[in-house]
Amino acid sequence: MAEGKTAADGAEAAFRRELIESGLVLDAGVEGLYGRSLVYEQITSGVSALVTRTGVPDGAVSVHFPPVIPRWLLEKTDYLKSFPDLTGSVHTFRGDDRLHARLLALVDAGEDWVEVLEPAGVVLRPAACHPVYPLCTDGPLPAEGRRFEVHGWCFRHEPSGDPARMLAFRMHEFVYVGDPAGADAHRDVWIERGTAMYGGLGLDVELVVANDPFFGRVGKVLAANQRDEALKLEFVFPITSTEKPTAIGSVNRHQDHFGKTFGIRSSDGEVAHSACFAVGVDRTALALLHHHGLDPGTWPAGVRAQLWP
Amino acid sequence: MAEGKTAADGAEAAFRRELIESGLVLDAGVEGLYGRSLVYEQITSGVSALVTRTGVPDGAVSVHFPPVIPRWLLEKTDYLKSFPDLTGSVHTFRGDDRLHARLLALVDAGEDWVEVLEPAGVVLRPAACHPVYPLCTDGPLPAEGRRFEVHGWCFRHEPSGDPARMLAFRMHEFVYVGDPAGADAHRDVWIERGTAMYGGLGLDVELVVANDPFFGRVGKVLAANQRDEALKLEFVFPITSTEKPTAIGSVNRHQDHFGKTFGIRSSDGEVAHSACFAVGVDRTALALLHHHGLDPGTWPAGVRAQLWP
Repeated sequence: MAEGKTAADGAEAAFRRELIESGLVLDAGVEGLYGRSLVYEQITSGVSALVTRTGVPDGAVSVHFPPVIPRWLLEKTDYLKSFPDLTGSVHTFRGDDRLHARLLALVDAGEDWVEVLEPAGVVLRPAACHPVYPLCTDGPLPAEGRRFEVHGWCFRHEPSGDPARMLAFRMHEFVYVGDPAGADAHRDVWIERGTAMYGGLGLDVELVVANDPFFGRVGKVLAANQRDEALKLEFVFPITSTEKPTAIGSVNRHQDHFGKTFGIRSSDGEVAHSACFAVGVDRTALALLHHHGLDPGTWPAGVRAQLWP
Repeated sequence: MAEGKTAADGAEAAFRRELIESGLVLDAGVEGLYGRSLVYEQITSGVSALVTRTGVPDGAVSVHFPPVIPRWLLEKTDYLKSFPDLTGSVHTFRGDDRLHARLLALVDAGEDWVEVLEPAGVVLRPAACHPVYPLCTDGPLPAEGRRFEVHGWCFRHEPSGDPARMLAFRMHEFVYVGDPAGADAHRDVWIERGTAMYGGLGLDVELVVANDPFFGRVGKVLAANQRDEALKLEFVFPITSTEKPTAIGSVNRHQDHFGKTFGIRSSDGEVAHSACFAVGVDRTALALLHHHGLDPGTWPAGVRAQLWP
């Protein structure tokens, strides 16, 4: 083991190598970015379909959004305050032939060519649920609140040798927007459903109080508050470390954060509260591969029945 | 009709409004960006599954890649030369607390906050097939070449009121990498299969010689060459204009473009040629909705059987 490397680093590198050598995932040419094989995709499809079935009692509206969201949407939330270092801002070229010549000269010289770019109207989506809140601003919510199922590609700029920390990954969420009691109930029911769902996959998850990776000095305070109020609970399972198991899902209460940000009112006219259950689809696939082995054909029949009924 | 607007603009706006009012797609808050309903997603899933079934005789390796690709990969191809204006370069924040304060001050002031960002190691993926070429560089290809099925989210920065010109959309491709004769054969067989596949969906497509939207003065020459050699054939179908029907799929011969760029050699040691069949999954869904009506429940039984066998 190289100096300065921890046991976790070693386990991460070993699991990454196993995944790539088995052909399940492909090194896509930059740290944290992976291609997926058909077998891997059959696992993520199975996980996603299972999440959908588990959420049927929610009667949620299913919506799907692209990997990019409007720039104004990111600016409107606290994302740039809380997680600037994870942001993926999209820039494009709007110049003429002359500026284009300059762009190509920079590329040819192996220099940064981004100085000739301008920000586009979009940024990469950091979490699946962000685009649903603007859908709730057309007057007070119904008494039962609104429920959404939303899944798709998310991006967080945290290059890592840990295959469970990807730059681009899929998240599958069930979101509730309504009143505080409804948000608490959403959390409670999804703690139960989530635990049962992972259990059915043979993943004996632990539910732990957690915090988001808030940035900088102020972030330390935000993280402490989040933990104090137990706003984030993670379903963790050991993938590359038993000491620091990986969050493969979470239940989050946002209090009135999105309600205030987007001006959403519950049926009684108060600022709406929201909560979500979120599954890391790729991380759940990796947990399954790590725990049951790299050949899904050999997984326990009960697990296979959950994924591919 | 407002002055300066063409009939096509009117038809685009009308179809866009219909799609949004029906709830099939959602205005995601910036021009060219849309959310998708469950019904819409059932159509795109059906289209994608049909493309997969149509390509079974290829015996292709199925690979799936995220919506972002390495920056070096874009730099290595001619993309920045040919389509700089469509590029989506990803930038992130790597500063400290002090620079973070500056970032937040810019956001609060409603000013551009991108000056404090730095380029990330990735860019948005402009076409589904780009990540497969680096997979072919491990020595000469087998005599039969290599075949890939690849699909996923692509990004092109071309904001438009035409719902068939989305910022973010899905493309499903079958790619061949091998020798010139194999590339021609790939084109020929996919012209047949593609025409039959669209025919089975009730879409009487026309196959036309086309060109990519190359940028600037030099681009005009590149486009003319591409047309002269008939390297790009598009399956077009009228969605918002009968005069300018929309390309909902294409067959492309790349000659030795990717072979040279990535140093790929065919079995005889020559620079490899490549070709691809590409389906615009979202555009095909829109063509179906436009042609058969906004309620897939009422579509012809034969079309439904192709999509949801």
